Amino acid sequence: MDRKLNLVRFVSVDRMMRIIGACGIEPALAALASEIEADFRRWERFDKTARVAAHSRTGVIELMPTSDGEHYAFKYVNGHPGNTRDGRQTVTAFGVLSDVATGYPLLLSEMTILTALRTAATSALAALHLAPPGARCMALIGNGAQSEFQALAFKALLGVDRLRLYDIDPAASARCAANLTGYGFDIALCASAEAAMLGAEIVTTATADKANATILTDNMVGPGLHINAVGGDCPGKTELHPDILRRSEIFVEYPPQTRIEGEIQQLPADHSVTELWRVVAGQHPGRRDPRQITLFDSVGFAIEDFSALRWLAKEAVRQGEYDELDLLADPDEPRDLFGMLLRAQQL
Amino acid sequence: MDRKLNLVRFVSVDRMMRIIGACGIEPALAALASEIEADFRRWERFDKTARVAAHSRTGVIELMPTSDGEHYAFKYVNGHPGNTRDGRQTVTAFGVLSDVATGYPLLLSEMTILTALRTAATSALAALHLAPPGARCMALIGNGAQSEFQALAFKALLGVDRLRLYDIDPAASARCAANLTGYGFDIALCASAEAAMLGAEIVTTATADKANATILTDNMVGPGLHINAVGGDCPGKTELHPDILRRSEIFVEYPPQTRIEGEIQQLPADHSVTELWRVVAGQHPGRRDPRQITLFDSVGFAIEDFSALRWLAKEAVRQGEYDELDLLADPDEPRDLFGMLLRAQQL
Repeated sequence: MDRKLNLVRFVSVDRMMRIIGACGIEPALAALASEIEADFRRWERFDKTARVAAHSRTGVIELMPTSDGEHYAFKYVNGHPGNTRDGRQTVTAFGVLSDVATGYPLLLSEMTILTALRTAATSALAALHLAPPGARCMALIGNGAQSEFQALAFKALLGVDRLRLYDIDPAASARCAANLTGYGFDIALCASAEAAMLGAEIVTTATADKANATILTDNMVGPGLHINAVGGDCPGKTELHPDILRRSEIFVEYPPQTRIEGEIQQLPADHSVTELWRVVAGQHPGRRDPRQITLFDSVGFAIEDFSALRWLAKEAVRQGEYDELDLLADPDEPRDLFGMLLRAQQL
Repeated sequence: MDRKLNLVRFVSVDRMMRIIGACGIEPALAALASEIEADFRRWERFDKTARVAAHSRTGVIELMPTSDGEHYAFKYVNGHPGNTRDGRQTVTAFGVLSDVATGYPLLLSEMTILTALRTAATSALAALHLAPPGARCMALIGNGAQSEFQALAFKALLGVDRLRLYDIDPAASARCAANLTGYGFDIALCASAEAAMLGAEIVTTATADKANATILTDNMVGPGLHINAVGGDCPGKTELHPDILRRSEIFVEYPPQTRIEGEIQQLPADHSVTELWRVVAGQHPGRRDPRQITLFDSVGFAIEDFSALRWLAKEAVRQGEYDELDLLADPDEPRDLFGMLLRAQQL
C-alpha cells in the first residue's frame, strides 16, 4: 500500500518561517487577503459558529471551527496578557485542516505566525473597502506582536507608507520602527495616542490588555477616519470609547461572536452593524461618504483561519516545506485496531 | 535559556503502542478507569459543554473541550462509517492537554487508540456500579474496533471471563475471538443477537452504522440485565428499541449531550436519567434490585479524554516515550514576533 494513511503533514514554526521567507512577507499577506476575499464571497457556504472559549483568571483558550462542506478547519488559540512576563507569547495558536468526506486531518500547522498574518490581511482587506480612497497615513497604536504585520498588510494592499507609532512602552515603538526599516515607510514615533492621530487617515489599535481600556477617546476621532480596531477581542476587553462607536458605521466579521467579544459589546445587542463579507461580496456598500467614520471591529473569525490553512496547505506542498506526523492509527484491516496493538507488542 | 518554550511533547501512534505495550493492556485499562473515577468524583470542578459537532453527509467531525481550571484538554474526533471501505478508520482522534495558567499546550497525542481504551474503561467503571454483582458472562454485539477493548476492560475491572460474540459480519466475530486468545476468556461465537443474549448478565452493544438500528428488541432483554450501549453516539444513530429504554434505569455521562446523541434521543427530553458521576461519587445508588434493568447510555464525554490525556502525559514522561514538536513560536523577545520572522529570513 503506497498511501500512508497514518501520516499527517505538519508545518512547524521553523517551516512556517521558511515558507513566508520564500514568498516574501508582503506577497504572502496579499495572497492571504486574496484567499480570505474569495472565501468571504462565498460566506453563506460555510458552517459558522461563535468560537468555543474557556476563560480563566489569567486568560482564555479558544477553539474556532468552520467548514465549507469540502474542508473543515479549526484553530486552537490562547490569549494570556501576563504571558510575556515569563517570556511566553500572549497569543499562540495552532490549527488543523481536514477532509470533510473522511474526517481525516490533512495538515497540522503552527498558527501563531499564520494568525498574525491573516489578522493583518483581513484588516487590510476591510480597509480596501472602508478607508478613505488614497489613504497613505496610518496611526498604529499598540506596537506589539501584531503591529508590523498590520503595517505591511496596509502597505501591500492599500499603499499606506506613512506610519505614526504610539505604545505605552516607547521601546515597543522603537522596535517596531527598527523592524520596518527597509520596507519603504516614513515612520514617526509619537509621545501620545493623540499625537499619533495627527494627520492619520486610518488608525489601527492593537493593544493587548485584558481590560476595558480607552485607547481612543471621542475627541481624537475626526471626520473621514477609518478605525481598524484589532485589540478588543474578548469579553471585558475593549479599546474604544463607546461614543466613537455611536458615531461610526460599524463593520464586523460574524455578529454573534463580535457582540460578545468586540468593541460592540459596549453597545445594545440590537445596534446596527454590517457584516464585512457583504461588502466584500458587493451586497453592501463600503465607505459612502468622505466625512463618514468607518470602524472595522475585528475580533478574528474561523473562516479567516480556514482560508489561511488552505493557502498554507498548497504553499507547503509547493515548497516541500512540511514534515509528516504519525498521528492516525492505521491498522492493516481497518476494523482491527486491537490487532494492531497486539502485533506491536509481539514485535 | 534552557527552557524550550517552542516545543510541545508529542505521542505518535507508534509511541502510544509502545506505552500501552509496556504497561500491559489490562493494567492500562485499570489505570485509566481509576483516573476517570477520580475525575468523576470531582465532576463539579469541570467546565462542561456539549461537544461541537460538524455534520456532513458522510459523517461528523467533533471537538470536545473541558477544563478543571488547572489543565485544559480537547479532543478532535471524526465518525465516518463509510471510511472502512477504502481502508480508513471509522473513528480517528487526536487531542491536546494544555496548561490553563499560560494557555500553552503541554501534550499533543494520537487518540484513536487512547479513545478506544478510555471508552472501554468508562464502560467497565459504570458496570462496576450497575451490573449484577458477580456477573461473569457478557454478550458483545458488534465486534468491530471497540470490541476487544470492552472485553478486556470488563475482565480487568469486573472479572468477566465468558463472552458471547455476535456481528452481522461473522469474520469480525472470528477476528475478535482470535485477538482475545490467551487472555483467559471462554468465548462463544453466536449466529444471532438473540443467541448471544442467552445466559448473558451484561450486554455490550458497539455497532457502527450511522442509522437508527434496532440491535436489541424488547423481548431479548430479561430482568437483571445490565446494558452497556456504546454504539449509539450521534443524532440519528441508536441501537436499542425505545421500549427497552422505558423499562430501564438509565445512566448517562452528561445529559445535555446524551439527550442529543445517545439512545435517549428516542425519549422525551424530560425522561428521567441519572448522571453516572453521581453514582461514582456515592451521591446516588447504582444497581438497587436484582431484577432491575440498568442501562449505561454511553456516548463518550470530554472529561474521560481529559483523564486519559492526564494519565498519558505522566506515563509518556515516565517511559520517555514522546517526541517534541516545534509548534509554538518563541521569539527571543516575546512581543517581537515579526523580528523573529525577519531574522529567520536573514539567516
